[in-house]
Amino acid sequence: MPIVDRWLLPDGIEEVLPEEAARIEAARRQLLDLFACWGYDLVITPHIEYLESLLTGAGHDLELQTFKMIDQLSGRMLGLRADITPQVARIDAHTLGAEGPSRLCYCGSVLHTLPRPLSTARSLIQLGAELYGDASSASDIEVMSLMLETLTACQVEGVHLDIGHVGIYRGLVQAASLDEVAERALFDALQRKAVDEVKVLTAQIGQASLAAMLCSLVELSGGTEVLERAHALLDGAPESVMAALDDLSEIAQTLSRRYPDVPLYFDLGELRGYHYHTGVVFAAFVPGVGQSVAQGGRYDDIGRDFGRARPATGFSTDLRFLVERGQVARGRRSAGIWAPYAEEPGLQAEVAALRAAGERVIVALPGQLDGAAREHGCDRILRFSHDRWQVVALVN
Amino acid sequence: MPIVDRWLLPDGIEEVLPEEAARIEAARRQLLDLFACWGYDLVITPHIEYLESLLTGAGHDLELQTFKMIDQLSGRMLGLRADITPQVARIDAHTLGAEGPSRLCYCGSVLHTLPRPLSTARSLIQLGAELYGDASSASDIEVMSLMLETLTACQVEGVHLDIGHVGIYRGLVQAASLDEVAERALFDALQRKAVDEVKVLTAQIGQASLAAMLCSLVELSGGTEVLERAHALLDGAPESVMAALDDLSEIAQTLSRRYPDVPLYFDLGELRGYHYHTGVVFAAFVPGVGQSVAQGGRYDDIGRDFGRARPATGFSTDLRFLVERGQVARGRRSAGIWAPYAEEPGLQAEVAALRAAGERVIVALPGQLDGAAREHGCDRILRFSHDRWQVVALVN
Repeated sequence: MPIVDRWLLPDGIEEVLPEEAARIEAARRQLLDLFACWGYDLVITPHIEYLESLLTGAGHDLELQTFKMIDQLSGRMLGLRADITPQVARIDAHTLGAEGPSRLCYCGSVLHTLPRPLSTARSLIQLGAELYGDASSASDIEVMSLMLETLTACQVEGVHLDIGHVGIYRGLVQAASLDEVAERALFDALQRKAVDEVKVLTAQIGQASLAAMLCSLVELSGGTEVLERAHALLDGAPESVMAALDDLSEIAQTLSRRYPDVPLYFDLGELRGYHYHTGVVFAAFVPGVGQSVAQGGRYDDIGRDFGRARPATGFSTDLRFLVERGQVARGRRSAGIWAPYAEEPGLQAEVAALRAAGERVIVALPGQLDGAAREHGCDRILRFSHDRWQVVALVN
Repeated sequence: MPIVDRWLLPDGIEEVLPEEAARIEAARRQLLDLFACWGYDLVITPHIEYLESLLTGAGHDLELQTFKMIDQLSGRMLGLRADITPQVARIDAHTLGAEGPSRLCYCGSVLHTLPRPLSTARSLIQLGAELYGDASSASDIEVMSLMLETLTACQVEGVHLDIGHVGIYRGLVQAASLDEVAERALFDALQRKAVDEVKVLTAQIGQASLAAMLCSLVELSGGTEVLERAHALLDGAPESVMAALDDLSEIAQTLSRRYPDVPLYFDLGELRGYHYHTGVVFAAFVPGVGQSVAQGGRYDDIGRDFGRARPATGFSTDLRFLVERGQVARGRRSAGIWAPYAEEPGLQAEVAALRAAGERVIVALPGQLDGAAREHGCDRILRFSHDRWQVVALVN
């Protein structure tokens, strides 16, 4: 590789320079502190694991996104984590083993073999929070509230929330007893909101009312009024479908009251993460950005593969993307004090005292004169005057 | 993989649970703040890169420690970083391109294909600081001082410092004009401090004084008095050797004055990282632990492969190992306030105000009674009394 190419980074893989790194670090601390105030405990999960452990409960999509390598010690296949959620679920299910609800949060890099749709990045700083052990919509509301507080903390503006519930489609399609091929075709058509195809595909369902309900999912999207329409259109649907609708109504009421400025948008045909999620699914969007800025949902079954099925709901976001989108900690590098190069005990003590007080102090290296102070972002200078070391403003 | 095995982690790869994660996070913040006070700017480097970029300047040892995988986008070989130092050197050499000295720091995970000697861990949280652009020993002293401050901040006790300088052996062996095979054998014997072998191998050197000097390296180890003996024994050595000795004397004087409680131990035959380092090398040890708790040295040539050779010196440590060894932030999870499950605007506002004030507040989920407060680490409870919400101590 010629010298000129050695600094090239793979597509979608980036290094973060001081100004942005400082903003990311500030946001990281602010958000982890926010999570702590809500009772979410930080865990740190491994970057690499046996592939089977990483993919458990997470489905085929994640497998294709996961970098793989051979473990020299065991001869087995390892994966580089592409999602932290399944790892945290394992910590809850297996390692911690709490009986009651538990709250965990995390922040760390994940890597994808290919960029996700609408993105070029293959390296994300995934930050998220998970609530285990409670199946009620109170947990979903807590997690969605924490997601909104996260976006507020990062000063992300113009947020609206998309909310769905995979239990509605699941309940209807189970009652319809479609064979696997027909079910897959219907799923695909619904995802594309292809009304005509959905009509054709549901025509073969014995119960006309079920077919009509499945068709209605395509158009059941909009503001909270959608939930009233859904209650009418889905009247007589299986119990699990009505329970899902009740959950959504409760979520809508509580969030509208707590966050009256955040528009809620419901889409009952939304099937994002259908194979992974089991209940409510949600995502936060801002104007002009195609991909969501934060997203999550309920995934009650994930712990089963680790020996203990626990209700689970949570959200995650890409911290770097959030910092780019938001206004958090934008601003100049903190100012500092320039100290001359001199091996003098009085000077060393003064420098140590200033640093202990939280000041940024740069000590000159041999040959560096005071003129270099500004290049190093200093706005003051340490100078010996009137028999003592004093901090004086740097004049231009 | 049966269910019972799905939670197994590969050897040397670990997950970090809440109590330890909180300590690591506290230490991380404290140390990055310390680095900032010394003028070191944080950078975030990629976890994966083209293999050639990762290994540049770092030598063969690093290649064997690096996990490798194929990049689906480019078809090229990627490596999972096993060391962050070469990445930061590239940022200095290529991306930032500052003319004067620059100070950078980092904190992130690195992974090794096999554990290092005396260790079982294959996953480390590497934390370090690097100073570029100044070739004087003032930079080495600054970096060594910062390393000692790092250990003090983490309350690592009983630290002593091992110091060497690869320029001494390098200067002597270059003057001796040994062929490659003989040089490698001598290097190997010296590393093992095999006095007799060193004598035999140096016997073939034409200049008897050079041979004697090389032999003397085996025994030039001990306290600062070693430097005086070295000045006598190496009298007449090539200029670069004498300059290296002068550097060590300056370092010894300054560190002894600044950190009188830290024992300094010199070993002029120390060749750790010889193929990578170019000047002073140092490592901090504590009693009863075989591996160093922090280490570093000068590596002036590393930037060359990225198009710009810059003087460079720095140190690094494993944050997790440091936190285990030290006494940092050991202690209980912060206490908290338990709030009942009730959808009541006054309660929500009270909870929000307490959290905004930095309190940890856990809101009960449906069915959870006040009795669960303690399990969630709460020592107080939010209760409606005398017409308002009040925080009251939890009685047993």
